[in-house]
Amino acid sequence: MSENAPIDIEVILSPTSKINQVDFESITFGSTFSDHMLQCDFRNGSWEKPIIKPYEPFLIDPSAKVFHYGQAIFEGLKAYRDAHDKLWLFRPDQNYDRFNKSAIRMAMPEVPREIFLDGLKELLKIDQQWAKGGVGNSLYIRPFMIAIGSGVIAAPSTQYRFMILLSPARSYYSGTVKVIVSEYYSRAANGGIGAAKAAANYGAQFYPTKLANEKGYQQIIWTDDATHGFMEESGTMNVFFRVNDTLLTAPATERILDGVTRKSIIQLATDNGMKIEVRPVAVAEIIEAAKTGELKEIFGAGTAAVINPIVGFGYRDDYYELPEQADSFALKLKSQIIDIQYKNAEDPYNWTVEVPLT
Amino acid sequence: MSENAPIDIEVILSPTSKINQVDFESITFGSTFSDHMLQCDFRNGSWEKPIIKPYEPFLIDPSAKVFHYGQAIFEGLKAYRDAHDKLWLFRPDQNYDRFNKSAIRMAMPEVPREIFLDGLKELLKIDQQWAKGGVGNSLYIRPFMIAIGSGVIAAPSTQYRFMILLSPARSYYSGTVKVIVSEYYSRAANGGIGAAKAAANYGAQFYPTKLANEKGYQQIIWTDDATHGFMEESGTMNVFFRVNDTLLTAPATERILDGVTRKSIIQLATDNGMKIEVRPVAVAEIIEAAKTGELKEIFGAGTAAVINPIVGFGYRDDYYELPEQADSFALKLKSQIIDIQYKNAEDPYNWTVEVPLT
Repeated sequence: MSENAPIDIEVILSPTSKINQVDFESITFGSTFSDHMLQCDFRNGSWEKPIIKPYEPFLIDPSAKVFHYGQAIFEGLKAYRDAHDKLWLFRPDQNYDRFNKSAIRMAMPEVPREIFLDGLKELLKIDQQWAKGGVGNSLYIRPFMIAIGSGVIAAPSTQYRFMILLSPARSYYSGTVKVIVSEYYSRAANGGIGAAKAAANYGAQFYPTKLANEKGYQQIIWTDDATHGFMEESGTMNVFFRVNDTLLTAPATERILDGVTRKSIIQLATDNGMKIEVRPVAVAEIIEAAKTGELKEIFGAGTAAVINPIVGFGYRDDYYELPEQADSFALKLKSQIIDIQYKNAEDPYNWTVEVPLT
Repeated sequence: MSENAPIDIEVILSPTSKINQVDFESITFGSTFSDHMLQCDFRNGSWEKPIIKPYEPFLIDPSAKVFHYGQAIFEGLKAYRDAHDKLWLFRPDQNYDRFNKSAIRMAMPEVPREIFLDGLKELLKIDQQWAKGGVGNSLYIRPFMIAIGSGVIAAPSTQYRFMILLSPARSYYSGTVKVIVSEYYSRAANGGIGAAKAAANYGAQFYPTKLANEKGYQQIIWTDDATHGFMEESGTMNVFFRVNDTLLTAPATERILDGVTRKSIIQLATDNGMKIEVRPVAVAEIIEAAKTGELKEIFGAGTAAVINPIVGFGYRDDYYELPEQADSFALKLKSQIIDIQYKNAEDPYNWTVEVPLT
């Protein structure tokens, strides 16, 4: 069955749905996908007509540039059901803008707004049953683009594929998180691609993270590669430090991802009257604050977990446990963001965008 | 048709050959592939039986980790026909060893020697007609490995695919090469993956290289990301500088690829009695040498072009043209390596390895 949607998307509906085979109570993050996906190819200098079709493997040449030269970028955002069964996106414009910034940095074509955002809404309308209600439940959205042109010569591809996948997610609890401050490995170079949401930035972290895991840490706090003297990110999240009642987080330089949750936290903290400083955060000042007891909290910020409190961190031969806080800034900010995302609170920022379901 | 080769490879021969459709005189590097390819999957903690089969696209899940997290590595080497129609590899052990070093850094499984090297020889035996005679002609070999496990969560895959592709190549002439010394962009971080032949390192270079192209330069000389004060690589090649009669090249640190051509040049130059210094090469000393006329040559070193002479370089607002050398070290070393590769000279190092053709 094929029909034209309003924004000129070809739609091929799956004859059956997998939804009844899915146990939504025991979903592992990122492992279950909805019935359909969006696909749009770039050839001969322009984007072809997007298509929504059943989720399925596709054929690709073994010499496709994505396999050999890592031309691949992605985004991550979520759709949330409110108490009235309406469906909402959280700041999708931010993801759209960042996606195209990543595209430019990786010498890939920018994706038009209507393909990314209108295409996403159309896909969500079709697979809306995959977005379950209840705070914590969400439908994780993975737009991505890969170089599908063939040829093993190190030059940009002329052909690309943009896709959107949908993956139902439960409330994200990653267990107790301890992190280790990196003294050797790093995730980004000055003048590199650290600020891009490029696939390349992630695979490069797996080995150092494995070494950290072996030492009993779940994640790494990445430091600047030149001096390892400044805190940059935690695992795949931005990182915040609370020293006394001041929040500290690194500026979004070319080495650091300009996270949507990060900037939402900065806004909310400011409007809460919290003191927040966006500036380079020295490892030395955090160690000193941990020793004097002035370091109250550390937390990661990202789409998957929203805010991920860190219970302690390792640095060189020492481990610093963080005391539990009665008035945790992390938990306060997390509940404020979640309340906005699920429409349980005012949204004075107009961060939420409704997805038409009919 | 399926049969077992000595090292337990399944072989499915193509019913027809594309070879007569190929104009070997007008081949673009990396764009034509032979009739067969080797494929071997890693699942459930071990490598399955390798298969040689017709070159063709394969099916892959849109959530495959290679698309989202850049777990992908490769190698590049060549097979050469000598004047007696024998086929030779050049230092394949080096590529094999480096491939597994790259695998470790990208948290991927190491590939067993017999799959990589014996598998390659078996593939070359089958597609031997694709390796044409004549100095300059070669069969470029592209072993690579990608993460094929599915799931959009940033953690190492549990499933991988190792493949070898063969691509006939002509003598590589890249035209007149001018390079610009990078003052902002960089290819590798301290504690990053610069020394690994990871796909991620290449796509990240495309955009800065495009900017260099727009300024009239074909490639970038990458400098260290922290200070941009030291010369590291040129484009996708290692780089050598000749100041008076001394060759200078950077040590193979964790930021720099330990090139096979690079180490062969160091060996040959040493045995030629040339002065060679493997040490950090300051941008300032090269600029100074260019101004005084002591800078005689710059050249890139890599498998594709062997040695690629550079005619001039840009730095800040200045362009430095290099004078033509009657006794070019680059050309002397290049012809020595090529003579060994094509068996037109003694190979005192045992660098060449014969490929059994029957």
